[in-house]
Amino acid sequence: MVSAPRIRVDVDASLDLTGTVLTYLAVPLCFPLAVAVYYGDPIGPFAAAIAATLLVGGGMDLLGDEETNLGPREAFLAVALIWFLVAAVGAIPFVVAGNGTTASPINALFESMSGLTTTGGTVFQDFSVHSRSILMWRQLIQWLGGLGILILATAVLSSVGVGGAQLMETETQTHDMNKLTPKISETARLIWGLYVGITGLAILVYFSLGLVGLAPNMDLYNAVAHGFTSVATAGFSPEPDSAGAFAPVVQWAMIPFMLVGSTNFVLLYLFINGQPMRLLRSEEFHFYLGSVAVFTAIVGSALAVDPTITFTAEATVRHALFNIASIITTTGYASTDYTLWSAAGQHMIFLGMFLGGMVGSTTCSIKSLRWLVALKSLRRSLYTSIHPEAVRPVRISDNPIGEETIRDIYAYLLLSLVIFFALTVFIVVDAQRISGFTVSEFDAMGAAASTFLNIGPAFGAAGPFGTYDIFPTSTKVVMILLMWIGRIEIIPVLVLFTKAFWTS
Amino acid sequence: MVSAPRIRVDVDASLDLTGTVLTYLAVPLCFPLAVAVYYGDPIGPFAAAIAATLLVGGGMDLLGDEETNLGPREAFLAVALIWFLVAAVGAIPFVVAGNGTTASPINALFESMSGLTTTGGTVFQDFSVHSRSILMWRQLIQWLGGLGILILATAVLSSVGVGGAQLMETETQTHDMNKLTPKISETARLIWGLYVGITGLAILVYFSLGLVGLAPNMDLYNAVAHGFTSVATAGFSPEPDSAGAFAPVVQWAMIPFMLVGSTNFVLLYLFINGQPMRLLRSEEFHFYLGSVAVFTAIVGSALAVDPTITFTAEATVRHALFNIASIITTTGYASTDYTLWSAAGQHMIFLGMFLGGMVGSTTCSIKSLRWLVALKSLRRSLYTSIHPEAVRPVRISDNPIGEETIRDIYAYLLLSLVIFFALTVFIVVDAQRISGFTVSEFDAMGAAASTFLNIGPAFGAAGPFGTYDIFPTSTKVVMILLMWIGRIEIIPVLVLFTKAFWTS
Ligand SMILES: [K+]
Ligand SMILES: [K+]
Repeated sequence: MVSAPRIRVDVDASLDLTGTVLTYLAVPLCFPLAVAVYYGDPIGPFAAAIAATLLVGGGMDLLGDEETNLGPREAFLAVALIWFLVAAVGAIPFVVAGNGTTASPINALFESMSGLTTTGGTVFQDFSVHSRSILMWRQLIQWLGGLGILILATAVLSSVGVGGAQLMETETQTHDMNKLTPKISETARLIWGLYVGITGLAILVYFSLGLVGLAPNMDLYNAVAHGFTSVATAGFSPEPDSAGAFAPVVQWAMIPFMLVGSTNFVLLYLFINGQPMRLLRSEEFHFYLGSVAVFTAIVGSALAVDPTITFTAEATVRHALFNIASIITTTGYASTDYTLWSAAGQHMIFLGMFLGGMVGSTTCSIKSLRWLVALKSLRRSLYTSIHPEAVRPVRISDNPIGEETIRDIYAYLLLSLVIFFALTVFIVVDAQRISGFTVSEFDAMGAAASTFLNIGPAFGAAGPFGTYDIFPTSTKVVMILLMWIGRIEIIPVLVLFTKAFWTS
Repeated sequence: MVSAPRIRVDVDASLDLTGTVLTYLAVPLCFPLAVAVYYGDPIGPFAAAIAATLLVGGGMDLLGDEETNLGPREAFLAVALIWFLVAAVGAIPFVVAGNGTTASPINALFESMSGLTTTGGTVFQDFSVHSRSILMWRQLIQWLGGLGILILATAVLSSVGVGGAQLMETETQTHDMNKLTPKISETARLIWGLYVGITGLAILVYFSLGLVGLAPNMDLYNAVAHGFTSVATAGFSPEPDSAGAFAPVVQWAMIPFMLVGSTNFVLLYLFINGQPMRLLRSEEFHFYLGSVAVFTAIVGSALAVDPTITFTAEATVRHALFNIASIITTTGYASTDYTLWSAAGQHMIFLGMFLGGMVGSTTCSIKSLRWLVALKSLRRSLYTSIHPEAVRPVRISDNPIGEETIRDIYAYLLLSLVIFFALTVFIVVDAQRISGFTVSEFDAMGAAASTFLNIGPAFGAAGPFGTYDIFPTSTKVVMILLMWIGRIEIIPVLVLFTKAFWTS
């Protein structure tokens, strides 16, 4: 008698952790509920979401075991489940509110997943139909998504020793950090505290600019809303014109917060705790800021020579730096409609989407460390092609990188580009099914990169002041899945589809 | 006193080898000369090329040393020089003939480089202005390019033990083959003999189809012309409508020759010499034919459901199979204008450009073995992400692949995609400089892939029945360089730009 292969994943442990997270989600949902009470908006949307998350979360807690058995497999499954189910709960307020495009469940899930994954691409058509509390929920879910990624990078992954943590070790030596603190969870708490602190500072700075009269429309509501989505490199704004709705000084103020949000938080913590050189000497930090500088210079030049663009010198520098920093940090705010720029300018925005900030931050996309390791490894390959006998480890900030890590980084880069390609083709082909609707290849490439790499705005109709609502429902469903897969760095979802994951 | 770093490359040895090859180039140039005499065309174009190649080649032979010192560096330099200078000599007949677009030296170099690299993209506008002998030279230079690649894969690289040879070893165990023959040069000669033999067979089959009346316009001239460019997976045709100018039976006859041209020639040799299972059990062979089958099925389905396409069932299968086989083998013939197909069909053609046939053949592009190794390695990475302690070599046809080879394959794939991207952006941005001229992103992607990966036809105006002459001169110059870099697999050119190459 042949028995079915035994499931070797402790599914109960994963469900238990997921249930716990869903239960805790009720706490942040009280914030938009309070906002609704303050502005006299309906409270039903948030009450429904709180009820749903307590019910589902509590049920999973009851069904699941204590999370004593959290190996790599259980962690992967929990991460995939948590990101998907929190997004699903996050969609409930949009559906219950029932206003505008997000009254439809698929659109609501798109908006919620775009929020939680800190993507920031919207399916809103008309911002004015949405209540202040719903718009604030949209901001808060992005801040939670940024926090979730920091937790993933600093606690969950490092406790199981896979993927991202390996990458973190490479640049930051979390074990050095651990000498400072007795437990990994202690380290993690310091990092999350830093995140909360910088968010508070952003809110304070933005609100002060409004208070002193430099930015009339920057009230407390907008200060909080943009504080939530700056350091989270998330990019939603309650304003349809994004950062373009505010005075230039606000745009200048946002740039450092986006840049800090994409900086390695362990190195940031060490920076303000007596070891500033660890950050200042980090090669990844140099590569990241260097990319922002080079891309800004090219875009600035393209804007300066473009006869159709009539910016002042200050505006040229500001719009070049703001939008490049926004794209490379993967925030996705826009200070102006870059879809009106020349091919050179738009293509720099497009290429910038593939960079990303530093590992161990809230940044999305491929991340500077991966590109830096790939470039250094490639340079070594050129060297060994003429000196086959040479043995030279690849070093980042003087630390040798393991050969398996290099190989995994290459695999990740390749996989990202292949998925991006496949999504582009899907968007174009899927659009052609709709009579009279076509998506240009460039617009499709932009939308594919921007959703899968969690940037936010794309090109054409899905540009920074546009909407993803133009896409067919089938395309939006695939984008929802790829925002999810991209944000948790592909592998935790991909392994779920291998037989070995479940039975070996 | 600080002295300049000493040049550590034996440049003389590289120059000597290059000079020898240029001198020998006079021999094949006699063929179009004879064709010119036969048809009463001017012989000046070929006489000039013969004089030039003997002069330059002889001069380099005199200047250079005996090629006693051919290490990896000298081989890289010689390969880069040979491919560039042979293309330059190959351009002379076009310029001297002075007809049509190729009267301009840049266009002539484009046509010649496209020929030698077996790309097959043309800058011709009007085929009828070119003499029969010039059109035959265009075919012959492609056949020489195919032969050159086989020599590179089987003799030069394996004698210095780098890059491509490492890949060849992986799949074919040339050392097994060497047991059959006392010397590597003997092995190589058997391979080249096979190439000559299959070319002869192709000519015979094509000519017979004409003789028996099945293909009225397939005369001896056309049979030779297409025999030269089928097995070479090269794709030039003296007919502006390519394979579409001939009867369906000719198109059916071309398919196996394109497929054989992209099959590993060592395994082909073993196949007809008592070891057929080595080819039939090759996982790369399965992957390569499987890709052709899957892509054909998808394109066939897309054609069948497309209301604007009214092919018979036979024509649907033939056009799907012919054009996919043509693209995946990197030949570049076309049986019909696929730029009229739906987005789905055109995108399958586009994606097919990145595959390529088997290593150790005349195929271009990335090649099946690299994709297969990357896929298997990725599958292993998924496995080790849940079983970190597992040690599992990646195997192709039961042979373990070295970890450094896997890493170099990833690097090659990434480098290819990045260069493809950069070329796409360059094409679009460069086009925008020209008032009133734009290249769509998809057409630019197609042209970038088709030139850099040495396929031939692209999309839009540079489609299979179109011309690359539409592009600005600056774009054509960059395409010339990238056809060259792509054909010799990037590294030999890239290392020339490292300081270590010259001084370490
Ligand atoms: K974002
Ligand atoms: K070709």
